[in-house]
This record gives sequence, C-alpha cells and structure tokens, in this order.
Amino acid sequence: MPQGRVDVVPDDGLTTRQRRRQPVLTVHTGPGKGKSTAAFGMALRAWSAGWPIVVFQFVKSPKWKVGEETALRALGEVPGGAPVTWHKMGEGWSWIQRPGSERDHAVEAAQGWARIKEDLAAEAYRFYVLDEFTYPIKWGWVDVDDVVATLRDRPGSQHVVITGRDAHPALLGAADLVTEMTKVKHPMDAGRKGQQGIEW
Amino acid sequence: MPQGRVDVVPDDGLTTRQRRRQPVLTVHTGPGKGKSTAAFGMALRAWSAGWPIVVFQFVKSPKWKVGEETALRALGEVPGGAPVTWHKMGEGWSWIQRPGSERDHAVEAAQGWARIKEDLAAEAYRFYVLDEFTYPIKWGWVDVDDVVATLRDRPGSQHVVITGRDAHPALLGAADLVTEMTKVKHPMDAGRKGQQGIEW
Repeated sequence: MPQGRVDVVPDDGLTTRQRRRQPVLTVHTGPGKGKSTAAFGMALRAWSAGWPIVVFQFVKSPKWKVGEETALRALGEVPGGAPVTWHKMGEGWSWIQRPGSERDHAVEAAQGWARIKEDLAAEAYRFYVLDEFTYPIKWGWVDVDDVVATLRDRPGSQHVVITGRDAHPALLGAADLVTEMTKVKHPMDAGRKGQQGIEW
Repeated sequence: MPQGRVDVVPDDGLTTRQRRRQPVLTVHTGPGKGKSTAAFGMALRAWSAGWPIVVFQFVKSPKWKVGEETALRALGEVPGGAPVTWHKMGEGWSWIQRPGSERDHAVEAAQGWARIKEDLAAEAYRFYVLDEFTYPIKWGWVDVDDVVATLRDRPGSQHVVITGRDAHPALLGAADLVTEMTKVKHPMDAGRKGQQGIEW
C-alpha cells in the first residue's frame, strides 16, 4: 500500500491535513470469504488509532457468535485503549426492551438502522462496522436512499464499513472504497467441515 | 457462513472431529485491498480460540508499521489470553544479531522462511500469518517447491494464512482456501490521501 502518494491532486480546495481526515465509506462485497473478517481487521487499525468503535451485526441468529467479537471486546477492555461497543440484531439489539418472544426481523433491522442514524448524528463513534447490512437493504427492510443520504451527510470524521453480498448499486455508488471478495477455492467444496478459529 | 453443513462427505476415513481439526492453508491474493487485513481479522478468531499466534511480515521497510500490530500485540498481553508473536523482516528479524548495517532482502527472506520451517517442525504455534510472503516466492528468494512440501507435510493442527499479490500457482494449488480481493473502487483514484486508522 503506497502511503501518501497520489496520482492526482484533487481540485477540492482542501489541505492535505483536511483530506487525511475525510471520512471513508467502505463496502466489502462479493461471494468470497473475508468480507466481515477484513472489516474486523480494519477495526484493529481503528482501535490502534484510539478511535471509539461500534459494531452493528445484522445477523438473524442469537447463536451466531464470531471469535472477532470476543477478541474485539477484549481489546475494548484494555486499560487506556479505545472502547468497543457491539450490538447484535440476533440478540434483539441490547437497547430494546421486548416483552414477548415474538421476533420480526424486518422491524429489528429498521430499529438497528434508526439507532445507527442517531449515533451518526451524535458523532458517537469514529469507526462503524455495519456487518451484513447489505441484506436488510436488499430485502427492502431499510430504504437505500435513506442510507445513502444519511451516510453522505454524516457529520465530522466518522468512518463506516459495510459488509455483505449483493451490495445495492446505489450503496456502491456512494462508497469511497469497494473491495469485492471472490471465492477461488473453499475447503467445504471438498466436503471439509467448518472449524472453530477458522470459520467463526 | 453455513456452519457444519457440507454438500459432500469425503471418503477419507476421518471422523467429523478429526476433520474439524484438519489444518487449513489459506491464501489471500489479488490486486484489491483487504488481503492482510482479513488475515489479521482471522487472527482475532484464532486468538479467541486460545491459539498461540505468530506473524511473519515480509516487508522491506522497518518503518512499515500497521495498526493491526499494535492491536494484536495488545491482545497478546491480555491476561489469560493466547500469546501473539510478531516478527518483521523490515526490522531485520528480531532473532538475528547483525553486526553491520548492510541489508540483503533476499538473504533476510530466506532467513525468515528458515525460521518458519523450524517453528512448524516444532509446532510452536497454532496460527501463522505469513504476510506479503507471496513476493519472496515470486522473486525466487524462497523456493516454492520447498514451501509447498513443507506446508503439505507440517505436523499437527497448524493453520497458515499467506497474503500478497501474484500468488504462485503451486501455492494456490496447495491451498485449502483461496480468496481473491478485487479492487472495485479506491479513494486514491480520486486523489485522496491515505489516512491513519484506515490505510495503516
């Protein structure tokens, strides 16, 4: 990765320092592995930079727990280190009181997005991972125009990474950085089992 | 990621438990971002599983320091957590005493690979990140046949992730899991500067 060299100097009236503080919207998409894993790897850098981190996982199952969660939560506990906040849709979002056991994923996805909007407006964090967030957009549970407008107009220097297959074209259009992960070869093709520490 | 479901049950005489302990060789290649970042994200899972981790970075510059290093080293210091060891070629490999300031990257790459072979033979770690290791192979500083044979015959349950562009075909052939990262869009294309916390 070349650091600090650019081919074109943009005519945007910004100083280099200002450009270095521009918030980045990243999308990891494609059918291959590594989309979420690379997002959590980016969170390592954010943590190292001292930035408060939040993860919103738009996963359906409460059982879906990844090793990254344990590790990033542990980092968030390191004295003097940046805090790490982790919200999981599959657990019904930590901030919502729920009387019954009735679950509606569309409602929950909208609740998650509403909270993200609040946090962005309040500049509550410097680094956001919206894990598997392409799916509620794809399924129409969250309005893509609202997502694009909210991210475009977010205040301050808040970096956002969105992961998931089938990213909406409008989201890709709004992103500063898009990487597509392509599956070349996978051990499950050969009938191998997923393994703790590797798959989750 | 479907957990535990496979389309084909291999006729390898192994139990599911044995198959779950099979060591995995992963390669992240391609021109896009996220190759190393996803490898370090995988290290989060490995750490969470309690596996001793080692990173060998085949980078030339001693100045090349990424946020992942700071964060993973911090994890390695968490009481009761798995240890994290970090070796960097750019610093001349920590275990080598060097009298002068003369540097030879080809020699250093070979020294790094020799150490990896020793560690694999001794089963010194459970999770290895060989960051940017495709390049010394490509440049002929490390013999690809030796790499493939060593990895194929490594004892125990040692997982290895190799990153870098232009992975050698023999390496891809030996890998269990290959993901190609494709650049779709990058902010430097628009003349934006790399940013701490995002690019390194």
